[in-house]
Amino acid sequence: METNLYTVTVPVMQKTLTALDKMLDKVAAHTETLANERRPASYYENAILQSRLVFDQFPLVQQVQVACDNAKNGAARLAEVEAPKMEDNETTIAELKSRIAKTLEFLKTIKQADIDGKEDIRVTLPYWGGKYLTGFEYATEYLMPNFFFHYTTAYSILRSNGIQIGKSDYSGGLPLKDL
Amino acid sequence: METNLYTVTVPVMQKTLTALDKMLDKVAAHTETLANERRPASYYENAILQSRLVFDQFPLVQQVQVACDNAKNGAARLAEVEAPKMEDNETTIAELKSRIAKTLEFLKTIKQADIDGKEDIRVTLPYWGGKYLTGFEYATEYLMPNFFFHYTTAYSILRSNGIQIGKSDYSGGLPLKDL
Repeated sequence: METNLYTVTVPVMQKTLTALDKMLDKVAAHTETLANERRPASYYENAILQSRLVFDQFPLVQQVQVACDNAKNGAARLAEVEAPKMEDNETTIAELKSRIAKTLEFLKTIKQADIDGKEDIRVTLPYWGGKYLTGFEYATEYLMPNFFFHYTTAYSILRSNGIQIGKSDYSGGLPLKDL
Repeated sequence: METNLYTVTVPVMQKTLTALDKMLDKVAAHTETLANERRPASYYENAILQSRLVFDQFPLVQQVQVACDNAKNGAARLAEVEAPKMEDNETTIAELKSRIAKTLEFLKTIKQADIDGKEDIRVTLPYWGGKYLTGFEYATEYLMPNFFFHYTTAYSILRSNGIQIGKSDYSGGLPLKDL
């Protein structure tokens, strides 16, 4: 595998969002085991989607939304194309999984040739006051650290809610080969 | 800036550990403001170093130790050199800052030429049962995701303890330029 601006961004985010999608399946299965006469699975599902690690950080639902935004907007900015807009109106695991699926679908349309060689483009965000980062700085100092911030936080919110996940869920599995 | 195996790993970790070091200064300053007749600053310092986000995740002191380990061992594995051993015996902020300083000192000895072109080397860890990842896979699927896992968790432990930090502390500042 060659190291270039595409291979260190898009495939990493694709793999990670796929891992997040699988963790959400575990949340759904977990809420089924919690369901009882007084409270249906959806009660627990909602409680987990609204739970936070720190009172003024985003709840799980928003951590997933922002991780998807990082991925689609980040890839789009580096490829210099428009990213699909999403409404931020998800309230269930099924809807979050659908958002991840749409994000992954968009990422598939971004090809290596769309991003490679974009190290020196100017990337600017509405809240950067008219300033910019180069494509390389944007990818390594902004996009990937923020993407992993929201992914890690989503993971730890699940852990704090008793979902049985660990390192291999976080990594999404490693392509280990026999020596 | 060129995208290569060195530029997407070592400088990113150097910047991030420097940001972590500055956040630890804020912790030290914060514990001074908490000190009172019954409890010295060191009481609060210890409480924060031992605090966790999730009961079976590492406390802050260990998150910082492991982030340093990720950085020094990761860079060393890609450069195919020995990393310095560290004792994991830190109990104060000053000692954690010294660990970060030693890690940064070691990272400075790793040059771009030591890592570039190492995409296809075989990297193996004691607990991978005799299996390996390529250098590229190790860097993008293991090293950087794990490094940001521990860094993000350290950051959120600080947030959960009321330390006044935000996005710019997390990013360590962005090299924004006028358009």
